[in-house]
Amino acid sequence: MTGDNLQFPHKLTLNERKSLTMTGVTEVVSFDDTAVVLHTQLGTLEIQGEDLKLKTLSLDGGQVAVDGHVCGLIYEEPKAARGFW
Amino acid sequence: MTGDNLQFPHKLTLNERKSLTMTGVTEVVSFDDTAVVLHTQLGTLEIQGEDLKLKTLSLDGGQVAVDGHVCGLIYEEPKAARGFW
Repeated sequence: MTGDNLQFPHKLTLNERKSLTMTGVTEVVSFDDTAVVLHTQLGTLEIQGEDLKLKTLSLDGGQVAVDGHVCGLIYEEPKAARGFW
Repeated sequence: MTGDNLQFPHKLTLNERKSLTMTGVTEVVSFDDTAVVLHTQLGTLEIQGEDLKLKTLSLDGGQVAVDGHVCGLIYEEPKAARGFW
């Protein structure tokens, strides 16, 4: 174990619009009961819904689980590297 | 087998934003390479993306698989019954 971020594949499973599990999450940017914004290896993901609750968060494993009423899952493309530093 | 629509649970799995499988789909409303509109037991689902391809369609089992680059999954709430007939 080098401490580098392990690259889990980004997979998302939604059961009955109310139980969402994800792998490959690198950061939780914001969270409230109507929207969750996450960074994933494949872009930023916004989860829109109602009564959203963060159920599991294990960023070592890139795992996040959210319960609630899910209305939308919207990705933004990863930004091209533009000399951030 | 009565011929009634079997009520499979609505489950959705997205792998690496490029391979989407669903159960609990009752109808494919429209399909092209940038958008797929489906009726599910839990509302209408619009899949937005690029280079979308219908890979599997088995409405007897409520199963649909779509490959491509997925950008968004957006649900509309089921319409309340309003005397359709």
